[in-house]
Amino acid sequence: MTTQTDSTRDHILTTGRALVAQRGFTGMGLAELLKTAAVPKGSFYHYFASKEDFGCKLLEQYIGQYGKTLTEILEDSAPTARARLLEYWSRWVSSQSSQEANSQCLIVKLGAEVSDISEEMRRLLEAGTRTMTTQLARTIAEGQQDGSIATSVQPALVGPALYQMWLGASLMAKLSRSPNPLLQAMEATLVLLPEPHPEQTSPDT
Amino acid sequence: MTTQTDSTRDHILTTGRALVAQRGFTGMGLAELLKTAAVPKGSFYHYFASKEDFGCKLLEQYIGQYGKTLTEILEDSAPTARARLLEYWSRWVSSQSSQEANSQCLIVKLGAEVSDISEEMRRLLEAGTRTMTTQLARTIAEGQQDGSIATSVQPALVGPALYQMWLGASLMAKLSRSPNPLLQAMEATLVLLPEPHPEQTSPDT
Repeated sequence: MTTQTDSTRDHILTTGRALVAQRGFTGMGLAELLKTAAVPKGSFYHYFASKEDFGCKLLEQYIGQYGKTLTEILEDSAPTARARLLEYWSRWVSSQSSQEANSQCLIVKLGAEVSDISEEMRRLLEAGTRTMTTQLARTIAEGQQDGSIATSVQPALVGPALYQMWLGASLMAKLSRSPNPLLQAMEATLVLLPEPHPEQTSPDT
Repeated sequence: MTTQTDSTRDHILTTGRALVAQRGFTGMGLAELLKTAAVPKGSFYHYFASKEDFGCKLLEQYIGQYGKTLTEILEDSAPTARARLLEYWSRWVSSQSSQEANSQCLIVKLGAEVSDISEEMRRLLEAGTRTMTTQLARTIAEGQQDGSIATSVQPALVGPALYQMWLGASLMAKLSRSPNPLLQAMEATLVLLPEPHPEQTSPDT
């Protein structure tokens, strides 16, 4: 059940998310957040102990929502694990090609900034990214089981490496205002996640 | 010839670089910079038109120095192009494993932050990274000429993809306060830059 309280809290988080995606965490002034969200200061401090606490809640919400979507894609979106991984990265291309604040990846936007200024926010991002790379590695291993990914690939190495490449590609896409780095990452992903050689899947033919 | 003027300007840039590497560009207050560098405000505005202009000069200096080191490594550090590329990334592991402000990669630290707030700084970073990825791609092509890298690799794809992976690995190393993401990137680099099969280099044996 959504109460008035929950909805004010969510409204502040949603407004803040669009602001930090644009200005960064340090650049988002509390006064601007309160004005944009049209809530009094007392209301903010009712829900959040400090700006840092607000940042933590924002990241928790973001990581929670992202994780849910990732799990849905990696478990259900296509018949083979390889197709599900490629579906995940196709959506990454779409969302990070967009200039819209709400589709911005907050790990790319805030990671380097907050890891030096808030130990709490850094730990949240670290735990979130660890969960994601573990899921990617597991899905690669599933792809080797279902015959969609070559067994020469090391899941525990290639999962994190691909995730890192996509983070860097998103940073480059921001810098260059172009989807090209994301399209290059997709091509490199196809190289790093090869399908088995025909003789590997059908040894009898 | 270094004049008094040059040395004050350089001193402000050096002090500012350590501060932005820690706090980000928005987080570095001008008052703090002036106090840390022990220079009066008028002196700052003698050399820099604005904080953004200072940021641009800082990035120009950083990219210039980085490019010089990169060129030296990629042209001279080892007999084969593949060994020179691996030398470049070995040094990347060392510098980005360090918590020292002056060894921080400013593209990782400032890229996502400044690309949304300063068109001028964004363009400098974009041009700098384009030069770097072009140099990497050229060195991969040289490795195919000197027989150290398999010809199955596409230089124009793998050069940028590797650079992106290393940017993402540096971000993950910052987030996790651990060199592991950089070591994983090195392992993935060895996969993406394979040596030729023996029969490819020595068809007669």
